[in-house]
Formats: sequence, structure tokens, C-alpha cells
Amino acid sequence: MKQVKVFLNEDEIPRQWYNIQADMPTPMSPPLHPGTGKPVGPDDLAPIFPMNLIEQEVSTERWIDIPEGVLEKLLLWRPSPLCRAYNFEKLLDAPVKIYYKNEGVSPPGSHKPNTAVAQAYYNKVFGTKKIYTETGAGQWGSALSMACQMFGLECKVFMVRVSYDQKPYRRLMMMTWGAECVPSPSDQTEAGRKILAENPDSPGSLGIAISEAIEDMLTDKNARYSLGSVLNHVLLHQTIIGLEAQKQMEKIGEYPDVVIGCAGGGSNFAGLSLPFARDKIHGKDIKIVAAEPASCPTLTRGPFAYDFGDLAMTTPLLPMHTLGHDFVPAPIHAGGLRYHGMAPIISHLVKENIIEGRAYSQLETFDVGVKWARTEGHIPAPETHHAIAAVVEEAMRAKEEGKEKVILFNWSGHGLVDLASYDAYFSGKLVNYELPEEEIKKAMETVGKYPKP
Amino acid sequence: MKQVKVFLNEDEIPRQWYNIQADMPTPMSPPLHPGTGKPVGPDDLAPIFPMNLIEQEVSTERWIDIPEGVLEKLLLWRPSPLCRAYNFEKLLDAPVKIYYKNEGVSPPGSHKPNTAVAQAYYNKVFGTKKIYTETGAGQWGSALSMACQMFGLECKVFMVRVSYDQKPYRRLMMMTWGAECVPSPSDQTEAGRKILAENPDSPGSLGIAISEAIEDMLTDKNARYSLGSVLNHVLLHQTIIGLEAQKQMEKIGEYPDVVIGCAGGGSNFAGLSLPFARDKIHGKDIKIVAAEPASCPTLTRGPFAYDFGDLAMTTPLLPMHTLGHDFVPAPIHAGGLRYHGMAPIISHLVKENIIEGRAYSQLETFDVGVKWARTEGHIPAPETHHAIAAVVEEAMRAKEEGKEKVILFNWSGHGLVDLASYDAYFSGKLVNYELPEEEIKKAMETVGKYPKP
Repeated sequence: MKQVKVFLNEDEIPRQWYNIQADMPTPMSPPLHPGTGKPVGPDDLAPIFPMNLIEQEVSTERWIDIPEGVLEKLLLWRPSPLCRAYNFEKLLDAPVKIYYKNEGVSPPGSHKPNTAVAQAYYNKVFGTKKIYTETGAGQWGSALSMACQMFGLECKVFMVRVSYDQKPYRRLMMMTWGAECVPSPSDQTEAGRKILAENPDSPGSLGIAISEAIEDMLTDKNARYSLGSVLNHVLLHQTIIGLEAQKQMEKIGEYPDVVIGCAGGGSNFAGLSLPFARDKIHGKDIKIVAAEPASCPTLTRGPFAYDFGDLAMTTPLLPMHTLGHDFVPAPIHAGGLRYHGMAPIISHLVKENIIEGRAYSQLETFDVGVKWARTEGHIPAPETHHAIAAVVEEAMRAKEEGKEKVILFNWSGHGLVDLASYDAYFSGKLVNYELPEEEIKKAMETVGKYPKP
Repeated sequence: MKQVKVFLNEDEIPRQWYNIQADMPTPMSPPLHPGTGKPVGPDDLAPIFPMNLIEQEVSTERWIDIPEGVLEKLLLWRPSPLCRAYNFEKLLDAPVKIYYKNEGVSPPGSHKPNTAVAQAYYNKVFGTKKIYTETGAGQWGSALSMACQMFGLECKVFMVRVSYDQKPYRRLMMMTWGAECVPSPSDQTEAGRKILAENPDSPGSLGIAISEAIEDMLTDKNARYSLGSVLNHVLLHQTIIGLEAQKQMEKIGEYPDVVIGCAGGGSNFAGLSLPFARDKIHGKDIKIVAAEPASCPTLTRGPFAYDFGDLAMTTPLLPMHTLGHDFVPAPIHAGGLRYHGMAPIISHLVKENIIEGRAYSQLETFDVGVKWARTEGHIPAPETHHAIAAVVEEAMRAKEEGKEKVILFNWSGHGLVDLASYDAYFSGKLVNYELPEEEIKKAMETVGKYPKP
């Protein structure tokens, strides 16, 4: 029998996260205070995040211990299996071996709890009583709800209203895990009331939801805010994916030629790829590909510049690939990839030619996603489809070149609560969205006002 | 660190199914032809099932080889993890260790594919081109759709209309895996047209759907019918669950005092428990509990008698615990437990005092299911809640008695596409359904016309 899955025993789970800030070829530009234009210090962030997470955010230690309290919760589903996609390989008929890390085995079905559990733990240790956050399609909100429940913290989630109404399942997960989930814009904050006064039927946006979550959080001195992607400490917590994958590949005597993940804010992609990026920095010949939507092509078409992380300009200025903080991504079903920016760590590694971006249209990603489900069984999330599209592209290239390749990608989550998007695909309602060159010009203007990284 | 999960490597997966017909203390009564009153032979079943599965249905061989072609598909998610529920144990504060087999890791999220893959394989080998089946809430239909897609078979599923309309996600899984899913009653069969003529708004029932699937199948000589529970060969295919669990328990030096599963038609319960029932038959002191809904209490209140498997009386007469083939179960959310009968193998083992039934009300099962989700993370299906209710009862009994106990149960599936039922629970819309004594009298009258087993 061919081996399909490589398990790690629980005692083989990584005990430290990998911090790539220790290995960067050149130093990263710091986040800037938008008022002073100077680097933000820990004190600037203290009202927003607990100090222990702020310390992680700026740490340059290569290895950071994973606390026992975090590990024992991660063990509810980790180590996740490394799988080989024999059936999908057969369909492609190319000289490639395709391995994937199945992050869909977590309770909410994605990689998000890897950092949610860590953030809830550090907040608990710090003394936080309640965590506020925002969520788009609900992957992050559901993961944080579960993590808060596990550590006895309250949790309040501002969920973009259009998703709140149209995607009830992840909202119901939050309820099941005991969180309060509010549609945004809401009448509970000034930011929300202002939007509602202008447009009572506003569908909301991630930018508005962030503003509401932060505003509401600041009224409660025992509360802190939490973000599910983009920031350094979030990417750090996700590196357990790649560290496990390295151990699993080693067990079967393999090493990837290509490492792939889909990228919205960058956390699942970073989680798998950063430990391999370390190898590349130290001379390993390996290709690392971030797959993004053609309608939100942060890495492939957005400038590398200082920009705000949110619409309301409440965050520090971050050095990143961005389409402008006021960019409104098209309503693609891969909700987790609808973000105007990209994690500074990923953006910096693209600048250093360690990582490359690739963009795929919505229809081509669903096409390969359905092929995957029909050969491998497991139904991928629409975000994950993007990674599969990059896998197919690499496989076809290997076939043309007649070269054998080992491909490893992050299967970031399952699509069981995203099946309405499959319905749209099968009924021919799904479309591609082009990004006009005009939008890129607009982004250049937006970021033109800020310092250059 | 405490060990939470016990994995089996793929080369440790069981290579044979266990057939308890070889170890029954007394012989089972045979299925009867309703016309002649005589035992049905293989030829009677040949128009319905492929001969290789009919042979399995009547086999008394103790061990039956699992074909390589089946194993290689099962390896897409099997062996499933054996997990220990430390957090739930802590909540209960009782002297028990709670282990569970997580069958939610399969692509559709339940144990159903264990037999779907085997049945699709044997049909393929036999030469079947298309498989017909019915489904209630959709667990079985989705599992069979996936299995048929894997072996290049066509699949047509008659889905009870009320579920087809109200529970779109499992219907969308079937579509994703390439099956045709038709709401039942439909205008495609005489049985369906007859019902629609009487009541154009009929919500449908499993009984009607079975009749339609069989009628439609019989018009196509290259087609066969498939059933997801109740029959001997279905239970046989599920025994891989218990055989894996035995190896996993052995690895950690444990053996259960109590084995628990929820029971509708009986297949997930049998899957875990039959290998342990074998040990009990050979003298092991162990309790085996089938947890069923109080509103559909087949084992705890229904007579053991000959009865039809479906409303339209198209099946042979089966010796089983039954509430009467015309019994209409209350609309509980655990759709997989809404069946009037119980697998003959399970019914026979209850008669032999190897297995006992217990009934739980809908509200108490949701109460413990939510507690589970909030401690262990993974959200259980409403069917699985029933097993958890039995676990809690056993744990509380151990506490009262001051005895230490090892409990093992089958976590038959996750509830991610059943979250609407959680919504009903949290909003106070969920109710209990009492079964009036009158219904039991009616069942006695129904089965009174047939021979006694």
C-alpha cells in the first residue's frame, strides 16, 4: 500500500515557534506612528494588545518557546497530518509528487486556531478579561471564540453585516463557543452609528468592523484587541505548521522543490513557508509561492509602501504590499483573501526575492477546487482553491519541462460551511473580476502621501 | 504533557472486517419473503444488490478481507484518531477516563463513508454502472456520492424533500461530488407521483424515498440499490472503527469498562461495539450501550418482531426491534436516528443481553453536546449528542458508586453543517417529544400480523 498520510506522534510536536526576524537578509522597516512619523514603541501599542504579545511582535529571538498551556490545547487537533495527493497527481498526469498539510482538522476547520489559542493564552496570563475582534466571513471570529471559551475569557466579535446575514454557520459556531457576535456596522459604537446614519443598509466592511472593535474595546480597561493575520506575532504562531511539515517530510526522506500557500493577510501561507524560507535564506534551492486572487492582487500588482492596516486609519503605518487602505476588494467567495494589504514579513521577503506572488481568477480556482474534491474527497475552502491553482500551474510546468518535482502546499481549511459558493459555481453564477489599472494608480496616490519604506 | 490522541500508522490499519455472525451465541432469525413467509435467498435479492455484497450479507466467516481497492480510499482519512477527552472529564469531575473515536475526520464528516466506499467498490467489481439510494438529512447520500465519484460510478439520490429544502449543505456536497440529487416525492416515479397527486406539498419521508429509489433503479438493468445502515454487510464494513480502537487502546494499555454509541439504524454503534461484543461473548466483563432518542425508542420500547424495513413494504421482513414500519418519528434534529427499526444484528444482541439500549430526550442531548463543544472544541453532530448523554450518565453513576471507569464511545460525526439545530437550541425553539404509550400498542398491532422471530 502507498503511504497517504504521515502522522507525527504528540511527543514530536514542535516545542518552539520559529521567528524569521532573526534570519532576515536585511532589516525590516519598522511600523510608524502616523502622527509623528516615528517608529511605534511598545507603549504605543499597550492600550490595544497585552504586553507579552507586544514583546513577541518585536522580538528578534530565533526560537520562542510554546507554553505548555498553549500546547495542551493545540493537541486537541495537532499535529495535523501531512498527506500525499496520489489521486490528484494521477489526474494531472505530471511528474510531480504533491504533499499537503491538512489544517482542516481543527474544530472550526482552518489554520486560524493556531494563533487564536496562543493569543487567548497570553491575554489570560496578562490579565485580560475580554477580547474584541472583527471578522469577515467568520473563520477568524469562530477560531477566537473557541480559544476564549477554552481559557475562560469573554469574546465579542464584530462581523461584517453582509456575511452575518448570508453566512450564518460561522456565526452559529461563535454562539456555540459562547461568544457575542454583533453585525457591523452596529449602533454600539460611534463609528458604527456614523456609517448607519449615512447608510442604514450598509453591508459593512472589514475596515468598519476593525474600527468598531477597537473603539468598543477601548471603553473597557480589562479588555484587549486581537488580530487574526498580518502582524508578526500572528505569523509566528502559525509557523508550527511548517515546523511539523519539515519533520514529516524528513520522516519520509523528502524535501520540497516548491512550497505553496494561499495568501490574504498572509498567516496560513507564512505558517507553512517561513521555516522553508529560512532554509532558502541559508542557500537551499527552493521556490516559495504565495497564491492570491486576481481581483485582490496585493503582491503581484500592489506597491510596497507604508500604509494603514484599516480603513479608519487607526493602526500604525505598516511597510507592506498594499492596494491602498481604502481599496474595496471584489465580492469573491474566498473571503479570507479579501484584504488590501499583506503581512510586512511576507512583503519584505518578496522584496528580498525569497518569496514570489502569483494571482489566479475566481473561476479557475473553483475549477481546480472541484477537481480536488472529486479525486481526494476532502472539499477545500475557496481560499485553499488558490493554493491548488498554483500547484496545478507548477505541475503543468514540470510536465512541459520534463522535470520531476516535489510540491508541498498548505491545505488551509475545508469548505463544508462555504458550500453556497460551490452552488454559485455549479449554477454558473460565479464570475471573474478584473482589477482595472486605474485602481493601481489610485493605490499609488493613496500611499504616495506616506514615507517610503 | 498528557497524551490526547492515539494515532495508528497506516500500515497498522486493520486488513479484515469482523463478522459477528460467526460468534453469535444463538443463530439469528433469517429475513423472510413477505409473500411466501420463507427465508429469502440470494436470488431474491439479486435484482437489488450485487451478488458479491449479498454473499457478505449472509456470510458467517469470522474475518473478511478488506480489498486493497477499498483500503486505499479509506486511507484518505483512516485510521481515525482515538482521543481522550481530558477537558470534558474535568468538567464532569467523575472518576472516569473518557476516550472517543473521532469519525468526523472523513470528508463528509461522519462514519458513513466506511461502508459507502466498500459498497461502491463491490458494485464496481460486479459491473454496476449506477447506484441509487435515498437519504434523510443527507449524511448517507453525501458519503455515497463521494464513494461513487471515486470509483467512476453514477449516483442518484432521492432526498426527503423537507431536508432537501431546509438543509442545503449536504445536498451541495452531493453536487460537488458529482451525484444527482432529487427531492422526494418526485414526479420521476410512480410511487412519487402517487404521493404528489394526494398531497402536492408532501414533505416526504425516508419510506417514500426508499420506494422511489428502488422503483427507479429497477428500470435500469446496470443499476443497483445501496443502503447506508441496518443490513449485515453495512455493519460489517463499519467494524473497522472498533478494530482500530482495540489496537489503539492496546497501545496505551487500556481496555474499556463501557462502550457507547448512538443508534439509529445501528451502523456507527455496531462499527465501534461489535469487536468488543465479541470479547463480551467470550467472557469479558464489559457494558455496551446503544443511545437512542426518547422520541424514537426502538430498542428501549419497541417490540422485537418481524417487520418491513420501509413504509411501502418493499423490503423482506427483518427480525428486529421496531416501532412499526408506518411509525413516523418526531422531527428531532438528529435526523440519522429517525428510523422505525434497528439493525437485526443489534436487535439480536440486545435479546442476548450483550447490548443494552438507553433513551435520551432532545434537550438533554443538546445540553451535553454544547458542553462538549465548549470544552473539547470539536462540535458534535446532534446524533453524536446521544452518545455523549450516555457517557455523562455513566460518569455520574461512577461518581455515585465511587468506582473508576474507562469509557469509550464513538464520536460519529461533527455538527458543522447541522448548526441550524444549535441555533434552534440557543433560541429556545427546541422541544422534547414524548412517545405516547398508544404508539407502542399500534406498533404491536402492526407487527402482530407477521411471523414471530
